[in-house]
Amino acid sequence: MAGDEEQLVHQNKQIVLKEYVTGAPTESHFAVTTTPVNLKAPEGSNVVVFKNLYLSCDPYLRGRMSAVHREGADKTDPEFTPYRVGSPISGLGVSKVVDSAHPDYKKGDLVWGGVTWEEYSVVENPKGIFKIPDPDVPLSYYTGVLGMPGVTAYFGFYDVCSPKKGEYVFVSSASGAVGQLVGQFAKLAGCYVVGAAGSKEKVELLKSKFGFDEAFNYKEEDDLDAALKRYFPEGIDIYFENVGGKMLDAVLLNMRLRGRIAASGMISQYNLEQQEGVHNLMNIVYKRVRIEGFVVLDFFPRYAEFFGKVLPWIKEGKIAYVEDIAKGLENAPAALLGLFSGRNVGKQVVEVARE
Amino acid sequence: MAGDEEQLVHQNKQIVLKEYVTGAPTESHFAVTTTPVNLKAPEGSNVVVFKNLYLSCDPYLRGRMSAVHREGADKTDPEFTPYRVGSPISGLGVSKVVDSAHPDYKKGDLVWGGVTWEEYSVVENPKGIFKIPDPDVPLSYYTGVLGMPGVTAYFGFYDVCSPKKGEYVFVSSASGAVGQLVGQFAKLAGCYVVGAAGSKEKVELLKSKFGFDEAFNYKEEDDLDAALKRYFPEGIDIYFENVGGKMLDAVLLNMRLRGRIAASGMISQYNLEQQEGVHNLMNIVYKRVRIEGFVVLDFFPRYAEFFGKVLPWIKEGKIAYVEDIAKGLENAPAALLGLFSGRNVGKQVVEVARE
Repeated sequence: MAGDEEQLVHQNKQIVLKEYVTGAPTESHFAVTTTPVNLKAPEGSNVVVFKNLYLSCDPYLRGRMSAVHREGADKTDPEFTPYRVGSPISGLGVSKVVDSAHPDYKKGDLVWGGVTWEEYSVVENPKGIFKIPDPDVPLSYYTGVLGMPGVTAYFGFYDVCSPKKGEYVFVSSASGAVGQLVGQFAKLAGCYVVGAAGSKEKVELLKSKFGFDEAFNYKEEDDLDAALKRYFPEGIDIYFENVGGKMLDAVLLNMRLRGRIAASGMISQYNLEQQEGVHNLMNIVYKRVRIEGFVVLDFFPRYAEFFGKVLPWIKEGKIAYVEDIAKGLENAPAALLGLFSGRNVGKQVVEVARE
Repeated sequence: MAGDEEQLVHQNKQIVLKEYVTGAPTESHFAVTTTPVNLKAPEGSNVVVFKNLYLSCDPYLRGRMSAVHREGADKTDPEFTPYRVGSPISGLGVSKVVDSAHPDYKKGDLVWGGVTWEEYSVVENPKGIFKIPDPDVPLSYYTGVLGMPGVTAYFGFYDVCSPKKGEYVFVSSASGAVGQLVGQFAKLAGCYVVGAAGSKEKVELLKSKFGFDEAFNYKEEDDLDAALKRYFPEGIDIYFENVGGKMLDAVLLNMRLRGRIAASGMISQYNLEQQEGVHNLMNIVYKRVRIEGFVVLDFFPRYAEFFGKVLPWIKEGKIAYVEDIAKGLENAPAALLGLFSGRNVGKQVVEVARE
């Protein structure tokens, strides 16, 4: 009886991975294709049809462009599962329900969570999708300050780093989706915070908008160790690691006794076929430093705790959030790849549709 | 009235550092000198005169042979203070009081703690010296299983690694002063434990004497990653790090989710002017690995807790301890330097005198 079912066929633009990436990804690794989609959810099917509004561009997506599952990673982590060549890629984003045959979803619902990079998504029994708990903020915030980067910054800083008032905090990739929040959380915790970013504009933003005590452009520093000694004559208690490689090496030389390093990511290494060597690890022994890797998925069960704190901070103006919004799905690959050259200023979002 | 004081002058052999070391230390960096010493403690002086019995050869002493205090280390840690050129070196050891004008020490007392590498030491107001709490074990044990290496292994394993029954434990430098104990503690905790050592003889010792489940000779492995995969098909939960460099890099590839690395030392790096690069640190992020450096001094306040556990284990035969004893102070430099080529089998001790 398929022929009798109601049909509402649209053209659906998608971002497809053409081949697995070795080294640096380029736009030629992606295709923008169009395929027909039926926007009606078949009755009795548990299907939900989403219109995708905002896509989140995140560094970890680079790992999914490689052919091989990260060795030793949890195979159940969607964050680390390779994409399928010839299929549209996926990530996190914000969507609106345009039709639903599923009892938990109704037309007009706003959601955030796992999303395919396409205009419309037809999903049977959606998983990893959350209702937007408060639509009275920019919806794109659920890709950033109220989404995965926010949870990363919040628990990565407060839980993994165990900050104490007056401690010296260093944030790399500091104007990015996570870094700008870590810096602001550090100020709220009474810490002294310095950020590194990759342009004069970003450095200004860190100081004027996010309240970092100091900031510097790492691209203008020949000697990162010397730069850190200039900004941290007493050394670093807490390093929120987004970068890896040479930056981590310089930080290790400047850690204080019993310092903590929360390793959230190492974006400088993602496009290298051979990872850079880090030479100064002996510092962690005699300085009693703890380096701790963490994955934000582990903290999602505590989302409500995070939301209860951060939403009021946003509404009271205690936390600012800067987004870099690319418009149109066809511009999504360039927006995503811009992360690796630091083209974005603030959290990189793709606006597929406004509603 | 100095001329009236009782004198008991002996010749005192000493091990003197001739120049600061860059790269690998050799015997030519040390001199064996002789100087007169008065073995009478002047009355009313708080002086204690020790006869030194056993000296502990430990890898960390290499750091003290360099001219520069380790940047960022706690300046109050004697472990990290450079030696003085032209003076005898020092470390930990076991001594006997031969004379005392100090109310807390009397002739015949046996002590362990900080000691100068010489036959006799005349010390005003001794600090960092502990009475031997039970002389009914070989006294040299207070340089090893009941001394600093024992405290390192005990708290490094039980506290820093938080072991759980059934976990997979890897120990490098496994037949050394600390490693042999970590392996045995891991077995007592119900773990599966594999050790790496540098000769067939040591590998046999690990399996036959210390009860390691498996052991291998790392010098015979071209590919440490492949070797670890052979012994840990399920991966490694706990790594007790004594070695650093290439071994750490291979271990990172084989860590399991939420694994712990206790960084006690990195002997492979101590004689290198340029430290080796470690390339696989991104593994700590997606595997949620914690690397934690620690310094045994921090755990000395808990010595009684350690002693209360480990002494009975020794007496009940639950813990074995193998020492490599070099006889005569003049052989001390060679014994110490042998640590860096792995010449010692078991804890390296120098017996200066039997009592």
